[in-house]
Amino acid sequence: MIILLKSNPDPEQLDSLTSWLESKDIQIHTSAGVSKTILGLVGDTTVLDIDLIAALDIVEDVKRIQEPYKNANRKFHPSDTVISVGNTQIGGGNLTIMAGPCSVESEEQLVTIAKAVKASGATMLRGGAFKPRSSPYAFQGLKEEGLRLLTLAKEATGLPVVSEIMEASQLALFDDVDVLQVGARNMQNFDLLKVLGKQDKPVLIKRGLSSTYEEWLMSAEYVMASGNERVILCERGIRTFETYTRNVLDITAAPVLKKLSHLPVIIDPSHASGKWDLVGDSAMAAVAAGADGLLIEVHNNPEKALCDGPQSLKMDTFEELAKKLIALHGFLATLKGEIA
Amino acid sequence: MIILLKSNPDPEQLDSLTSWLESKDIQIHTSAGVSKTILGLVGDTTVLDIDLIAALDIVEDVKRIQEPYKNANRKFHPSDTVISVGNTQIGGGNLTIMAGPCSVESEEQLVTIAKAVKASGATMLRGGAFKPRSSPYAFQGLKEEGLRLLTLAKEATGLPVVSEIMEASQLALFDDVDVLQVGARNMQNFDLLKVLGKQDKPVLIKRGLSSTYEEWLMSAEYVMASGNERVILCERGIRTFETYTRNVLDITAAPVLKKLSHLPVIIDPSHASGKWDLVGDSAMAAVAAGADGLLIEVHNNPEKALCDGPQSLKMDTFEELAKKLIALHGFLATLKGEIA
Amino acid sequence: MIILLKSNPDPEQLDSLTSWLESKDIQIHTSAGVSKTILGLVGDTTVLDIDLIAALDIVEDVKRIQEPYKNANRKFHPSDTVISVGNTQIGGGNLTIMAGPCSVESEEQLVTIAKAVKASGATMLRGGAFKPRSSPYAFQGLKEEGLRLLTLAKEATGLPVVSEIMEASQLALFDDVDVLQVGARNMQNFDLLKVLGKQDKPVLIKRGLSSTYEEWLMSAEYVMASGNERVILCERGIRTFETYTRNVLDITAAPVLKKLSHLPVIIDPSHASGKWDLVGDSAMAAVAAGADGLLIEVHNNPEKALCDGPQSLKMDTFEELAKKLIALHGFLATLKGEIA
Amino acid sequence: MIILLKSNPDPEQLDSLTSWLESKDIQIHTSAGVSKTILGLVGDTTVLDIDLIAALDIVEDVKRIQEPYKNANRKFHPSDTVISVGNTQIGGGNLTIMAGPCSVESEEQLVTIAKAVKASGATMLRGGAFKPRSSPYAFQGLKEEGLRLLTLAKEATGLPVVSEIMEASQLALFDDVDVLQVGARNMQNFDLLKVLGKQDKPVLIKRGLSSTYEEWLMSAEYVMASGNERVILCERGIRTFETYTRNVLDITAAPVLKKLSHLPVIIDPSHASGKWDLVGDSAMAAVAAGADGLLIEVHNNPEKALCDGPQSLKMDTFEELAKKLIALHGFLATLKGEIA
Repeated sequence: MIILLKSNPDPEQLDSLTSWLESKDIQIHTSAGVSKTILGLVGDTTVLDIDLIAALDIVEDVKRIQEPYKNANRKFHPSDTVISVGNTQIGGGNLTIMAGPCSVESEEQLVTIAKAVKASGATMLRGGAFKPRSSPYAFQGLKEEGLRLLTLAKEATGLPVVSEIMEASQLALFDDVDVLQVGARNMQNFDLLKVLGKQDKPVLIKRGLSSTYEEWLMSAEYVMASGNERVILCERGIRTFETYTRNVLDITAAPVLKKLSHLPVIIDPSHASGKWDLVGDSAMAAVAAGADGLLIEVHNNPEKALCDGPQSLKMDTFEELAKKLIALHGFLATLKGEIA
Repeated sequence: MIILLKSNPDPEQLDSLTSWLESKDIQIHTSAGVSKTILGLVGDTTVLDIDLIAALDIVEDVKRIQEPYKNANRKFHPSDTVISVGNTQIGGGNLTIMAGPCSVESEEQLVTIAKAVKASGATMLRGGAFKPRSSPYAFQGLKEEGLRLLTLAKEATGLPVVSEIMEASQLALFDDVDVLQVGARNMQNFDLLKVLGKQDKPVLIKRGLSSTYEEWLMSAEYVMASGNERVILCERGIRTFETYTRNVLDITAAPVLKKLSHLPVIIDPSHASGKWDLVGDSAMAAVAAGADGLLIEVHNNPEKALCDGPQSLKMDTFEELAKKLIALHGFLATLKGEIA
Repeated sequence: MIILLKSNPDPEQLDSLTSWLESKDIQIHTSAGVSKTILGLVGDTTVLDIDLIAALDIVEDVKRIQEPYKNANRKFHPSDTVISVGNTQIGGGNLTIMAGPCSVESEEQLVTIAKAVKASGATMLRGGAFKPRSSPYAFQGLKEEGLRLLTLAKEATGLPVVSEIMEASQLALFDDVDVLQVGARNMQNFDLLKVLGKQDKPVLIKRGLSSTYEEWLMSAEYVMASGNERVILCERGIRTFETYTRNVLDITAAPVLKKLSHLPVIIDPSHASGKWDLVGDSAMAAVAAGADGLLIEVHNNPEKALCDGPQSLKMDTFEELAKKLIALHGFLATLKGEIA
Repeated sequence: MIILLKSNPDPEQLDSLTSWLESKDIQIHTSAGVSKTILGLVGDTTVLDIDLIAALDIVEDVKRIQEPYKNANRKFHPSDTVISVGNTQIGGGNLTIMAGPCSVESEEQLVTIAKAVKASGATMLRGGAFKPRSSPYAFQGLKEEGLRLLTLAKEATGLPVVSEIMEASQLALFDDVDVLQVGARNMQNFDLLKVLGKQDKPVLIKRGLSSTYEEWLMSAEYVMASGNERVILCERGIRTFETYTRNVLDITAAPVLKKLSHLPVIIDPSHASGKWDLVGDSAMAAVAAGADGLLIEVHNNPEKALCDGPQSLKMDTFEELAKKLIALHGFLATLKGEIA
């Protein structure tokens, strides 16, 4: 961390600052220029609250050199984190395909889809039981019943299950769920993150609608600092001025996050664009960009049920896409061996 | 609501749609054009899930004419909601000034500030006991102890207190708090909103970092639909590409929200810009734009404590600003009488 | 400027960098920390291309301490720039009200509006002759004929005229126009800016749809560095995720720009919100925030002509608003004398 | 186009609207509901100015059903546009790789790079002679001399050349340039677009920093409506809240634009991220997403020259990337044949 002091800082306040820093085991390297003095801080600066320092009267500017996250930082953990769930592995060169309906609706719907996506190559089943909806009048999910149906579908297919948890108090209900999903709107629900850090199921954290990479990694850090190292990051599109797509898929999140962190990164192309006919190309791009996997919405029969989104793939479209994704992933692995 | 059908819609699916709409007590007015057919829906369309309709194969586009919120809608509640808290009133032409420190730090700090802001004209005391912080390593507030100190400051000054609640389970601790604040990061924590709708303290909902007016009003609707009509809306700046200020204060939120809704709207100029020297001009603008009040950070002695933000006003600066705000509010009331 | 070097920088490349800096008359203060070395640069760093330095292999990061603009910078020009146009003055505590139609349509329309806005207190007439339109099929303005009508209206009222110039080659046509407006879409049309810097009419630069304060001031710097110091900055709303209003008025631009620069800052509330019923509150906020003036769209008879926007005020609404703006401006001047 | 009228519209104004629409050869289908009346317009609505209609007192809302662009619209031109330049073809399943330095600096630099990128598989040479820079003090390109060097490099390699034109008056200098590039900051410089529509070289239009797909296609429409059908669209990242990368690459632009339009779409991964170590993964994603090509910055020796950006690839890194891109493009063509 570098602190740029204002010209002629008050000596008493400067003493107060340096004593405080030293009390935190930070070494200070002072560099006095003609008009400005710079303090270079060496030590574990993640414990420093940059806003507090910036607020001091004698400080003109503060700049981090080290990232503010430790557990999630690849610098301190160079090799990829690989997360085992059931008999599948997330990260480390594997291609994870999580597929299933946006909302769990009925046993028939869920089991049909689960069997189909498994046959097509999916490695995990996704399905929402608790649904965050911007309107209190919209369908909020089947809740406990939805979780029960997910257990049935898991038993029927052997696929591990990922489902969204919205509040700490729901945790007891998620016994049979394999991966706990934190939704975009809850990415900075810090109380929830702390609770998820104190249990041992893997946690999939979706990026907030307008969260920076750093904020997202800090949310992962909340879980990890509380004791749970098994975190998966999921890019699902960010909010911008463009309204043609629901969100804008930030494809570069995959290589960026994999540089900054050792955690697996997956992409949700369904929520990103909000249009089923853009899901295929986006998913292919995600694999080519180096993502560890995908989270894809698949439904069976939208015409009969009034409960599937314009962003869901039909089962046969998913089947074709999954083939292409798996083929592309294999091709890229070979290519890497040949060229790089 | 207007539904634009695709050309030559499947008759069976169309029947299925119209039956479903009629089962919801919606009247349908069909208008068949040369190539496209339009369905005009009359009735309480707030109960319809627009995404579900848009997802149907036979639907090209859907457009709401009515807003999706009822309780918060000025159309159904033309007169201003006025919320009484202690002996102060929020909304209805009153100027509410909530002032105090970002975080409660100590009894001395809090009581000193509380007395000063009261003397300057503040009508409520603000102070954070539970602090949402993007880093797990940053100061998270004094928690219960902070709430205890707020009670002391309230007793010492008579000022009603507003403080942030981060999770439903904390509710029991907030007995002495007069207004419960929902932070920007929790604006779409729907479980929290529902719980706050089932108790009777007023709820102040900060706008999410990148939430639209409609999403914000839908969060108010969550509280109101659960039974609590006493909601205050607080604009605190939105996230954009500009990095000079922490956020961009959307001053137009005041007149827009007051047109769309009958709820009081206040402005937080401190979080909006993140710079204390922009707070005064922003606050004056807020009053001129018709806001019902302000939420302003004030601290006493930033040089001694490492715990105040660059966005807080000193007590004497606040005193001067409060005088100007009150004078401006009075002037505008007179002007309105004379001209409009 | 501060340059943070990577660990163990290549000595030859470091020599090359320091020699180059010294050739630009920059003094270098080196501060060697334990792991990193920092170079503090003293001198006129506006001439340095920060991207070029950041691109060097040995450089980890570069940070400006000085702003990259000189002529527009208040640090080097502490007192307000006041721009005289006809018998009105822009900046320095005056309230400028530029009003008129979005597009010049006919002599009758323009002269009617010009007389009305003058009677209501406007100090300048605005009117578009060349109109930038996102569609090639939309009305592109009356062009030369529009400028001729502006001259007639100016003669009829004595109001100085501001109108948009879209291309350097149009300059000869703008002889009778008093202030040349650069539109938001042309804010970074650097060739146009350079040409406008070589003539002596004042130039009003609208902020680009997603331009930062710094980019905006750099566009002013283009004009000023070419020789024309008479630049007016005009905030007209920025593009964000919110779609209820056309743009989001960044009211804080007024105090920010007036701190960073000595140039006058005016606000265009009509383009900002795109809705006439939000113009009044936004305009009042602008005056309260310290803006030097306003640019407001006014039309006469929208029902007969298919050529006025939903953002224009009718003449009587403008009259009432102008009274309030002038009263508010006077009140604030008195208040400043009393309190500050 | 659908026009929703307000309740009880003034009959005279309604007559005036319908007469005007009929004078434009638009057929009107009226649908009177209980409280609202809807007008469905059939005919060539691209000629209608939607803002003018929305501005009418009797109109509550207007919605386009047809896109406002014709020439660029795939609906009216179902097959891909393929643009021949020299002996290379852009669009129609070909993979175009435009590579070269950001700025032309010297003959040696340019010819070295041109030969290298050709050997690696590039199909066109890019190089900036006129450089738009946000600072008037930054290097603005070699201008005419830069264009002369591009001609030399073209002669030395046979590669067609793409270079940015900033103003209509420069057109005569671009005789030897094969594709004229319109930069992001000039995307809505409508005068420039019109001039480029009246000459016959292909025009590559970069997306504006915060331009929607529709605005971007409307800029293409400007060129096409003026007579030049040979337009290439280039996504180069959009401006958002995220600051880690210079811009956010909107990878979905490729499939979206190819659905909406028949024009070729290429991706510039260098400007999008602004970091050379993200270019490779982004470029691979672009090919997988269906883009027709890439625009990549390549430099030779950044350590000696102070003139290359952090976003440029070294020649050997480009060589390796080009191999991978070409292999991926071939693989996807085969896959398409096998599966789809």
